[in-house]
Amino acid sequence: MNYPTVEWRGSVATGVVRLIDQTLLPGRLKFVRCTDVKQVWEALRMLRVRGAPAIGVGAAYGLVLAVRGSRATTAERFLADVERQAAYLASARPTAVNLFWALDRMRRVAREEQGLAVPALKARLLAEAETMAAEDRATSIKMAEHGLSLMRGVSTVLTHCNTGGLATAQHGTALSIVYRAQEIGKPLKVYATETRPLLQGARLTAWELTQAGIDVTLICDSAAATVMRQERVDCVILGADRIAANGDTANKIGTYALAVLAREHGIPFYVVAPLSSFDPEIASGDEIPIEERSGEEITCPYGLRIAPAGVRTYNPAFDVTPAKFITAIVTEYGVLHPPYNRSIQRSFKDRAAT
Amino acid sequence: MNYPTVEWRGSVATGVVRLIDQTLLPGRLKFVRCTDVKQVWEALRMLRVRGAPAIGVGAAYGLVLAVRGSRATTAERFLADVERQAAYLASARPTAVNLFWALDRMRRVAREEQGLAVPALKARLLAEAETMAAEDRATSIKMAEHGLSLMRGVSTVLTHCNTGGLATAQHGTALSIVYRAQEIGKPLKVYATETRPLLQGARLTAWELTQAGIDVTLICDSAAATVMRQERVDCVILGADRIAANGDTANKIGTYALAVLAREHGIPFYVVAPLSSFDPEIASGDEIPIEERSGEEITCPYGLRIAPAGVRTYNPAFDVTPAKFITAIVTEYGVLHPPYNRSIQRSFKDRAAT
Repeated sequence: MNYPTVEWRGSVATGVVRLIDQTLLPGRLKFVRCTDVKQVWEALRMLRVRGAPAIGVGAAYGLVLAVRGSRATTAERFLADVERQAAYLASARPTAVNLFWALDRMRRVAREEQGLAVPALKARLLAEAETMAAEDRATSIKMAEHGLSLMRGVSTVLTHCNTGGLATAQHGTALSIVYRAQEIGKPLKVYATETRPLLQGARLTAWELTQAGIDVTLICDSAAATVMRQERVDCVILGADRIAANGDTANKIGTYALAVLAREHGIPFYVVAPLSSFDPEIASGDEIPIEERSGEEITCPYGLRIAPAGVRTYNPAFDVTPAKFITAIVTEYGVLHPPYNRSIQRSFKDRAAT
Repeated sequence: MNYPTVEWRGSVATGVVRLIDQTLLPGRLKFVRCTDVKQVWEALRMLRVRGAPAIGVGAAYGLVLAVRGSRATTAERFLADVERQAAYLASARPTAVNLFWALDRMRRVAREEQGLAVPALKARLLAEAETMAAEDRATSIKMAEHGLSLMRGVSTVLTHCNTGGLATAQHGTALSIVYRAQEIGKPLKVYATETRPLLQGARLTAWELTQAGIDVTLICDSAAATVMRQERVDCVILGADRIAANGDTANKIGTYALAVLAREHGIPFYVVAPLSSFDPEIASGDEIPIEERSGEEITCPYGLRIAPAGVRTYNPAFDVTPAKFITAIVTEYGVLHPPYNRSIQRSFKDRAAT
């Protein structure tokens, strides 16, 4: 990815949030310039910006947009504005925990920096959002390095949805491994599932990887089992929207099926996600709220009706993969192995210590 | 289904093959009248007629169209025409064995009835094709009865692709059970997978069942695992394109994944298919040729580009489900249980004896 998925351009007072409208890819590469928070909320809601890490960064920038015009003159009143706008942004999507994590971090900064005058506090919030974007880039690079250690003997990976540059501030989660492997001259081949209903695999992953000159083969979601059975892939790598304390992982609908199929075929199944995608507050995947989206995503892709009008639908955007199906989880702090309760806890301690 | 999917209308000399162009459903219910064999070949190739049993009946009618204008004056020369045209029709699709089965049956009639004058032989072939269509309807009814015996305690089924009236001459294979259950006042609810790439579930199954007033919920293929995990379905019922002597079953891509997932969730997995879908000549699924179709079915549904131009694709139209995943196979001769080598052999003996 040569351009950031989502970034701040300009000063705190007059800048904009510039983002790629991913709903138009691969047909059109359009940058949208958001000047108020409603546009950012809408961009999150409509998946113009998507991918757990990118959602977090986008929400942080959105919060800056939301409060930079605040007329509050006291830190206390300004904080109230921050809280209200953070709650609004948090309502855009329910599953990806990075959204809440990023907003919590911004709220904490606003609380902790009450000594600053309001204009300085606004600048401080932008700086924090910029830091988060920079950290996200650094995190991708670290995940790529750790993930590479799992790629010995691997020539082809299967991936689902989009976990590349478009899903993060710049480099990606699972696909960062693929990009890094290419950089060091040991390219991996990729089978990408199209990822119905919103086709992030066909539209985004196939596009990103093709642009980068990586050997990618697009398949229907339902062909993944055959691809595994024919021994065309050596492992599965994909991202996460929320990981519980025990390692249960919410990710794009279809992930759970791939996990069951990978185990059936003796293929390692790797989740790649930054610590910001973990939610140690919840014990297991049973507690993760799963976003159910409009049935029109199934019946009317691109506004084209492919099913009879009025047919009932069920359209969960995510599913939960029990930890027992996950061979390892790659984070910026290293590769986590089962039992995940312990390895996840240790990672949080490592982070606290740095 | 109130109208036959494919039928002969008129006399042998001037009649037509009338079929529903299923590629236009559910948007439009259009009947196509084929007056020459190339139109039937094209209809099979382009999946205007699809579903293993309907393919068989359609090919038989197509053969009548192909040879009714034959100028052969001897039975021998006429037979040569039959053989040539049968070979042509057989080239339309490689996987569904009903195609070859139906054509073989027509060829055998042509060979066995060499005593007839050519005009009488032409009429005899049409009569045979009509018999096959009638048998197909009767077979559906028998499969429905046998299948119902497996539905005790079942309130909701999951199905894949289209196995209803549109897939046969009239009633269906797996869905015939659903129609019959409704008739006897014990309706089943249905979860239908959309069935990418050609969306037979969304376009055809959802349409058929909605028309019939059956409670159907449409899901993406990748959501089936979640539907099973949430205990929304009690069993899986689907059809077959070819079943080997050991029970290995070729069916629409995605079937194998559903079989693995059903076993993981302790859900019975039933295949419903007439004996004409069995190929006792082949020992196992490894020998079944799998049709690989154009990548445009993935990248350009309805001519709409959803993936970057030039991306590599892999588009097998079918997969093979090993017999060990199949709880039972429903045929017009009863319910077959493992070991299938034995139960399939017995069914063929039963048929030979009737």
